[in-house]
Amino acid sequence: MTADFRALTPDDIAALRAIVGETAILYGDADRLAPYRSDESGHGHGANPDVVLKPCSTDQVSRIAAYCNRHRIPMTPRGAGSGLAGGAIPLYGGVVLSFERMSSILEIDVENMVAVVEPGVITNDLCQRVGEDGLFYAGYPMSVQSSSIGGNVACNAGGAKVIKYGATAAHVLGLEVVLASGEVLQLGGKRRKDSSGYSLLRLMVGSEGTLGLITKITLRLIPQPGPSADLLVPFRSTEDAVAAFPKAIMAAPDMPAAVEFIDRLSMCHAMAYMGTTIPLADNADAFLIIQVEAKDADALFDVYRPVGEACLEAGALEVYVADTLWASERIWGLRRNCLEALRVIDPTVEGGDFVVPSTAIPAMMTFIRALADEHGVEIPCAGHVADGNIHPHPLKPEDRSDDEWNGQRHELLSRIAMKAVEYGGAVSGEHGVGFLKNDILAQSKGDELRAMKAIKDALDPHGILNPGKLFSN
Amino acid sequence: MTADFRALTPDDIAALRAIVGETAILYGDADRLAPYRSDESGHGHGANPDVVLKPCSTDQVSRIAAYCNRHRIPMTPRGAGSGLAGGAIPLYGGVVLSFERMSSILEIDVENMVAVVEPGVITNDLCQRVGEDGLFYAGYPMSVQSSSIGGNVACNAGGAKVIKYGATAAHVLGLEVVLASGEVLQLGGKRRKDSSGYSLLRLMVGSEGTLGLITKITLRLIPQPGPSADLLVPFRSTEDAVAAFPKAIMAAPDMPAAVEFIDRLSMCHAMAYMGTTIPLADNADAFLIIQVEAKDADALFDVYRPVGEACLEAGALEVYVADTLWASERIWGLRRNCLEALRVIDPTVEGGDFVVPSTAIPAMMTFIRALADEHGVEIPCAGHVADGNIHPHPLKPEDRSDDEWNGQRHELLSRIAMKAVEYGGAVSGEHGVGFLKNDILAQSKGDELRAMKAIKDALDPHGILNPGKLFSN
Repeated sequence: MTADFRALTPDDIAALRAIVGETAILYGDADRLAPYRSDESGHGHGANPDVVLKPCSTDQVSRIAAYCNRHRIPMTPRGAGSGLAGGAIPLYGGVVLSFERMSSILEIDVENMVAVVEPGVITNDLCQRVGEDGLFYAGYPMSVQSSSIGGNVACNAGGAKVIKYGATAAHVLGLEVVLASGEVLQLGGKRRKDSSGYSLLRLMVGSEGTLGLITKITLRLIPQPGPSADLLVPFRSTEDAVAAFPKAIMAAPDMPAAVEFIDRLSMCHAMAYMGTTIPLADNADAFLIIQVEAKDADALFDVYRPVGEACLEAGALEVYVADTLWASERIWGLRRNCLEALRVIDPTVEGGDFVVPSTAIPAMMTFIRALADEHGVEIPCAGHVADGNIHPHPLKPEDRSDDEWNGQRHELLSRIAMKAVEYGGAVSGEHGVGFLKNDILAQSKGDELRAMKAIKDALDPHGILNPGKLFSN
Repeated sequence: MTADFRALTPDDIAALRAIVGETAILYGDADRLAPYRSDESGHGHGANPDVVLKPCSTDQVSRIAAYCNRHRIPMTPRGAGSGLAGGAIPLYGGVVLSFERMSSILEIDVENMVAVVEPGVITNDLCQRVGEDGLFYAGYPMSVQSSSIGGNVACNAGGAKVIKYGATAAHVLGLEVVLASGEVLQLGGKRRKDSSGYSLLRLMVGSEGTLGLITKITLRLIPQPGPSADLLVPFRSTEDAVAAFPKAIMAAPDMPAAVEFIDRLSMCHAMAYMGTTIPLADNADAFLIIQVEAKDADALFDVYRPVGEACLEAGALEVYVADTLWASERIWGLRRNCLEALRVIDPTVEGGDFVVPSTAIPAMMTFIRALADEHGVEIPCAGHVADGNIHPHPLKPEDRSDDEWNGQRHELLSRIAMKAVEYGGAVSGEHGVGFLKNDILAQSKGDELRAMKAIKDALDPHGILNPGKLFSN
């Protein structure tokens, strides 16, 4: 990648300062700029951004975009910086546009069951707020406590409950978007349907800040689901576990809210990290976590019983039922902390995000195991098995140098991702492409990528919006 | 609109004949070309298309597109011709590309719960076929018996069950699309998630054949729902009915599968057409049809009882329960034949398709009633009230001439649609824009339309795909 953009001048800084005001611009202070250089992917760029702007209104965002478009200044939008694909990392310096000050929940419309929020709202804050009205935001990802809604929309984030409720895209009814030109579009709204021209709304979801800057989001809410129970189900082998989950789903009276997979390696590291143990962990090679919901507590047993029985029939070693908040939190804590636990072992650990049709999961797991053996590395896996979306995490062996391992890890993850594509899958199920997956996106969607680039060029002719992401400039 | 395209030459015809073969081309025979001049909107174009081609493979479609693109020949794709917005009407002559021969159900993948079909499959044929495997295609529209899947996708068709299952877009997992250039893209597939670049898949759904030609469709299926019951609920006034439905929804243990609205005028015409009467029709000014589903027949009563009680509390005159196929068919026959019934009164009747946030429905109904009174016309209304999607049908008064009425009807429907936009709605909820709503699309989405046009120009630079639709050329 080469930088095609000129460096910012004092005149640029003065103009941008005039838009956002003195307190909302970071410039020249290397220490304060540094946090805007990287994200949760662990990757970063060598240099700080030239300037960080923290607008507080759509009007400011529009004026910033218009200025940058006129002067060919690259802009990198940033939510909470919790992305795992490098999407918020400024590759060409220029402006980082941080939405941290645009973090208001603007409206909870109980009658229409929608929320209107600014992009910087932390997802969990929205979940808690709508809960007060008996409503539920079903689109939240595993990073609910740290990610922002704007980032969720930019990546079309998934999460544990996609199988029942759909990914973020299924919950976005409206977006206010600032184009590269500064023009402000109102896409969708509180209406539930629209067959009036192209769905620019859906095009923007998952476009990772490369087509427009999201300044307002209208989200679909649903009535708060009834009480839930979580089944922790150990299996002797990965093959047993992945063969069991479709049977468990078919046995359930309603679609389970979540079906998660954790392999033995991930579970061991997570238990050590959480300072806990779970029964039968020694004999089990793979675990499912199945969450079911019922109308009321009395009905729960009738919902989880057939699911548990189906698991036992399919070879489960045991079925542990958590139907209290405390017990459920213990189980989900293990799942949610899989990545954090691996970071204790390998601080630079990086995961894949492949997705396949769910029937291809067994073949994918076999492939990953063989690949791990072949290269003498551990590749713990966990993910949303019913969606076909698994995160493999190759761990750095002690005998590899950093440089050697960086290349090898990228190759391992790329081979896994391309194998997924062979099985009718894709290279990212929920994290997005950022710049870390540009090469495998191009390999896997070459023809489609040309059409994507034509759209990019049509809406952002000077390429100022998040350059270097999705497409290698 | 002016035609920018040249007429086809004998050389063109020979080249196109060579692609599809002698039996799959209609040319020169005015009688056989005539049916391809119009659609169910009742509108048509003065002249026949130059030629109708009936390709039988993606390869043929690709070669036709490449030829037409090279020679600047307009192409109008056509499914079953059941569209209500003129989307399949060839405005500039040229080629009508009929998918009537590409009508195979290619695969029912029970394990992954998807169907792969060609665009010409009649929706009901798919519904019946997947039912044999205990599966269900939840995206079907009211025109299930006549429309094709390709047309459903092109318009992002809705239907009665959107409230529970979503419109067509929610059920499309994959598309094979031929671009104007002839290039074939495979978008999505059997995977359930994808965060790997822009969702061209979702962009194509609802693009009405203006961005690409759909040659294969992968659809999400769900397990066949349990038995259903239908409540027919008469109310003294429209206001009572629209105030009652949110209460009925909140009272239901699960989301009802459908909540339909029929006003008195529509019901009277439908009863006359069906040669049936329903109780209390004399006192009622508006009706809801509420369909609920349960796991099994024993559970049905507990599901519909609270819904019925909520309706009675909200002022329903009575609640009639149909829990046999025969009784349900009687109720749904009335709803499904609303349009056919009106055609007996006014053979050229044309309906609107506005959508608003559901809380705006009462204000919309008041507006429509006042508009009808002001102009001395009847405007029966029926639609999917819980989605905020209503179809008003102005009926031609006997004292108006055809010409006078055509203009007046368009003005009435446009005023209703633009009022919906004022309330945060859109001009089409499920029928699409075709060319009949170009003017109100431009009025309602001017800024957005420019971005849509930029995308159109990027993917179809010579404008050969369905010209005159969405955008007035």
